[in-house]
Amino acid sequence: MEKLEMLYEGKAKKVFKTSESGKCWIEYKDDATAFNGEKKGKIAGKGTMNNEISAIFLSLLKEKGVNNHFVQRISGTEQIVLQVEIIPIEVVVRNIAAGSLAKRLGWEEGKELPQAIVEYYYKNDELGDPIINNDHIALLGLTSESDLTKIRNQALKINKILQEFLKMKDLILVDFKLEFGKTLEGEIILADEISPDTCRFWDASTKEKLDKDRFRRDLGNVKEAYQEILRRIGGTVGV
Amino acid sequence: MEKLEMLYEGKAKKVFKTSESGKCWIEYKDDATAFNGEKKGKIAGKGTMNNEISAIFLSLLKEKGVNNHFVQRISGTEQIVLQVEIIPIEVVVRNIAAGSLAKRLGWEEGKELPQAIVEYYYKNDELGDPIINNDHIALLGLTSESDLTKIRNQALKINKILQEFLKMKDLILVDFKLEFGKTLEGEIILADEISPDTCRFWDASTKEKLDKDRFRRDLGNVKEAYQEILRRIGGTVGV
Repeated sequence: MEKLEMLYEGKAKKVFKTSESGKCWIEYKDDATAFNGEKKGKIAGKGTMNNEISAIFLSLLKEKGVNNHFVQRISGTEQIVLQVEIIPIEVVVRNIAAGSLAKRLGWEEGKELPQAIVEYYYKNDELGDPIINNDHIALLGLTSESDLTKIRNQALKINKILQEFLKMKDLILVDFKLEFGKTLEGEIILADEISPDTCRFWDASTKEKLDKDRFRRDLGNVKEAYQEILRRIGGTVGV
Repeated sequence: MEKLEMLYEGKAKKVFKTSESGKCWIEYKDDATAFNGEKKGKIAGKGTMNNEISAIFLSLLKEKGVNNHFVQRISGTEQIVLQVEIIPIEVVVRNIAAGSLAKRLGWEEGKELPQAIVEYYYKNDELGDPIINNDHIALLGLTSESDLTKIRNQALKINKILQEFLKMKDLILVDFKLEFGKTLEGEIILADEISPDTCRFWDASTKEKLDKDRFRRDLGNVKEAYQEILRRIGGTVGV
């Protein structure tokens, strides 16, 4: 398989066409952004770490029956994935109040939710990724009602699988963001990445943050937090 | 019936206990606020006008089978209503993009929506009335899922009734906010007011704004806009 022209450059990844129909070549970057791109930086080794972390999570999910775009990791920072058309909805699942939910409801960060909840955000940088409801999604024609129900159910299933897996690693899955995409065959599958860039992970005993909040909130030891996640979930890369 | 102690003072109304169980005494004020109380002012005669406008709309809705809290108007600024416990959800129905919807979706104000949409906001001044979804409502325990479905259906029914009525008066119902409450018997009914404070009304031909946006956006002729609404819907008060 050959790497062809770049299709898209996001904040944390580049996506390339390949010589094989239906497959893309992804390159994870060290670039870190927060607050809709207002804060910018680099986390040394993040590309390598997130490439492996995401590969581990997406492989686990595939094993557990959650079809997704991951095909194989091919280098430190690169992986092959199925080509999908991304549905511009950021699907957020939350188990514990943090970030914008804590602010929205006036809840203290760390408060456990009686049940997992799902939120949708319109993936649109210009608008600052605003929160939207099912009616807005219909209005924007982002996806059908029945597909949205499937996406929601998948997101909650993914939450259960990841929560259980992370619990064994002494990690709490506070919340996370997913993206879904449509394959060439029209199937909606999980896409994008699952990493400390897109999840909040807390150490189960100390509640120490081991995710991008260390970068967002200038808590220091950002790289070390990503390394710790990789180490706990059984990664092999010694960055 | 006697007016007893004040139960609650809101931004635009005072609510009093009465000597009759299950009934409250409402006094409409001239005070106007916008942007979560950041902008404050008075609109001379607003209390009288909104008292009558709301009475007209709530009576119309009752005629059309939408049970609500309105009992009778008893003076220029006062009306008797059924006592309810307000459910702290602001239910917004929209037919045309304006205000926060236009901003949220990046749509031009005035764009017609292919179908009416419903939004929920958490009625909480301290938090700035944030938009919430069904999961947040369940989390906060604001109402049950089945009651929320009933509220949504009522809101859409109210929209149809008001749209049709206003169309005959050469008015466009752009959007509006409703509040619902639980009676002593546990029935959920429409409460609060329906007025240019809580609706966007545009003249059908000129698209001139005839509602609180004239106050919010300093467009002038605020009082005259409220008078015009009252005149068109058949009010009797010559303010």
